[in-house]
Amino acid sequence: MNAPRSWLDWNATAPLGEAARAAMIAALDAGNPSSVHADGRAARALVEKARRQIAALCGTRAEHVVFTSGASEAAATVLTPDWRLGRSPLRFSRLYVAATDHPCVLSGGRFPAERVMRLGVDASGVIDLATLEAALAGRDNADGLPLVAVHLANNETGVIQPIAEIAALVHAAGGRLIVDAVQAPGRISVDLSTLNADFLILSAHKIGGPKGTGAIIGASDLLMPAPLIGGGGQERGHRAGTENVAAISGFGAAADEAARGLAHSGVMAIWREGAEAEILRLAPDAVFHGRLAPRLPNTTYFSIPGLKAETMQIAFDLEGVSVSAGSACSSGKVGRSPVLDAMGADADLGAIRVSIGPATGDREMAALVAALEKIVARREKPARAA
Amino acid sequence: MNAPRSWLDWNATAPLGEAARAAMIAALDAGNPSSVHADGRAARALVEKARRQIAALCGTRAEHVVFTSGASEAAATVLTPDWRLGRSPLRFSRLYVAATDHPCVLSGGRFPAERVMRLGVDASGVIDLATLEAALAGRDNADGLPLVAVHLANNETGVIQPIAEIAALVHAAGGRLIVDAVQAPGRISVDLSTLNADFLILSAHKIGGPKGTGAIIGASDLLMPAPLIGGGGQERGHRAGTENVAAISGFGAAADEAARGLAHSGVMAIWREGAEAEILRLAPDAVFHGRLAPRLPNTTYFSIPGLKAETMQIAFDLEGVSVSAGSACSSGKVGRSPVLDAMGADADLGAIRVSIGPATGDREMAALVAALEKIVARREKPARAA
Repeated sequence: MNAPRSWLDWNATAPLGEAARAAMIAALDAGNPSSVHADGRAARALVEKARRQIAALCGTRAEHVVFTSGASEAAATVLTPDWRLGRSPLRFSRLYVAATDHPCVLSGGRFPAERVMRLGVDASGVIDLATLEAALAGRDNADGLPLVAVHLANNETGVIQPIAEIAALVHAAGGRLIVDAVQAPGRISVDLSTLNADFLILSAHKIGGPKGTGAIIGASDLLMPAPLIGGGGQERGHRAGTENVAAISGFGAAADEAARGLAHSGVMAIWREGAEAEILRLAPDAVFHGRLAPRLPNTTYFSIPGLKAETMQIAFDLEGVSVSAGSACSSGKVGRSPVLDAMGADADLGAIRVSIGPATGDREMAALVAALEKIVARREKPARAA
Repeated sequence: MNAPRSWLDWNATAPLGEAARAAMIAALDAGNPSSVHADGRAARALVEKARRQIAALCGTRAEHVVFTSGASEAAATVLTPDWRLGRSPLRFSRLYVAATDHPCVLSGGRFPAERVMRLGVDASGVIDLATLEAALAGRDNADGLPLVAVHLANNETGVIQPIAEIAALVHAAGGRLIVDAVQAPGRISVDLSTLNADFLILSAHKIGGPKGTGAIIGASDLLMPAPLIGGGGQERGHRAGTENVAAISGFGAAADEAARGLAHSGVMAIWREGAEAEILRLAPDAVFHGRLAPRLPNTTYFSIPGLKAETMQIAFDLEGVSVSAGSACSSGKVGRSPVLDAMGADADLGAIRVSIGPATGDREMAALVAALEKIVARREKPARAA
């Protein structure tokens, strides 16, 4: 009777991986990494091991990794006008974000609201390069440099942005590029030099690590943001507060798994294509948002005319299938999706996000299809009754 | 040969309690509390249970608890000039802190440095009430209200501040009082109405919970600080970012334990008095900092003339005893103690902090005394050789 639920909401949070769990549990009794005694040094070693693992995932050096409590804190830290180049202050005048960025980026961090400019996207959800180029050309560097923050892959649609092209435009304008890569590890490469980005933001719990930690990863550590949290001087002065040793250890292990997981991303794509084929079989009028753009291999985001996403989501839930209507970051409310709005799609209707992971298999897919079959059948009944 | 080490550094981090460990492990597979499906709602329930546990510890309502990634983030959040009273903005003009506050409070958060005033302490480390009263009287409320942030108990000395008296002065001046109560739970009461404080700051890992979470606890939630981290609207808009469900669950369990632990604080005091008697037997010229003031029952902070604390700390460490020379929040460096400086003590010599917990017993105490015996013996040898 109590069939196990089917987790198809990996973009909201990925199940804790076995290696991450083991690393976390092994670190639960760690001391305070700031203590100089043996217990403190052992805790420090765990943090530094994880730092090397995150750096390896992103193709940078361990000393360019700053641990935070998650991606939202990482965004709040780097999205600031106030930076230091070595010991000298450096000021960014404006922040450019994509209209489909995560709310923690859209919030603009420490930039005053009037200094945050939103870049539009096309119907596929891809940032318009011409718009970015024009925005950067129209500003005056005498006022300060431009800071640009965009996502590598969208949390709702999975659409992948042309980061290297964006980076070229940003750098040509003397600016710096921050990339929210939260949804990418284990699915596509997050190599900093290939992306040509200046900073990446990661979240542990989106890649099979624990909730409660994330990181700012730099291509260098010469240019660094003013700290958001001051105090005890941890993270080389960039982020105060006793390090979350257990979560950081789990994050490191998850980064290792994500690096290895890239080899399986083709398998995820096959499951995703299979799911989309089944959705189309059951609802031939289904619309897949962002399907014409490059997408993550694990995400599909679809609307079915006549079926409100919020209603579908509840129906999936009652059938034991955890999917999302939009993103999962508005305190338990299903809100209107700003991503669909920005893409010019029907945000009133909404869309269902199915996001899978390396552990997804037949059972979850069968549950998804069985649930959708019931949901679609219900749509047709009132039509016949009318 | 491999004797277990003796943990006498509870003020740096308390060992994870059994109930907290169990709660954490039970919550490791929780979903995202912002998801509306059953898995999300189950995660939400874990967070709300912990919120009630923290509120009960502090004698306030669950909706007045805001979870953060730790006490440093909590301090960075509440130490701001920008607040909201309901929906109206309210500005504090100046921040008053104690010279012996934790670095995360001394940093002044989002106040400009010139708006942060330090209050001196007497030789025992107690905040001088007359100085506070004069400072508050000398300012002009037309400029904005005063915000005062002091610790309930000092992390190095364990000295307890007269919070109710401080609160009376602050409120008489139209100000608000934030109390860093990080070192207090399980040792002394943290009841908000008895303290008469407006906000408390807590850290899970100092009370037997996991690292990576803490809280801001208000006597009400009408007056709230501008969020430090914006984005997904979690914590009723006061702190964005996916909740660290496992750590928060552990924090809740630790709060329950701390509330019960108050009954045992007398036992800790007896062990501490015993330790001080032994220290005096071995080094009759030892000085106990703050001993004349009310102190936490678990902390002693002593100097021995002719023995630098840094050297003693290393010697204790080699003997398998984890104690601290000052606090543990400067990235593994033993720095000059600003607490000793503020108390007018010999900060060049430094001091050793022995901090115990409910699990401390004979074995740890015997190890402490045996190690100190060796350390003190070494002090006398060069004197005879000279």
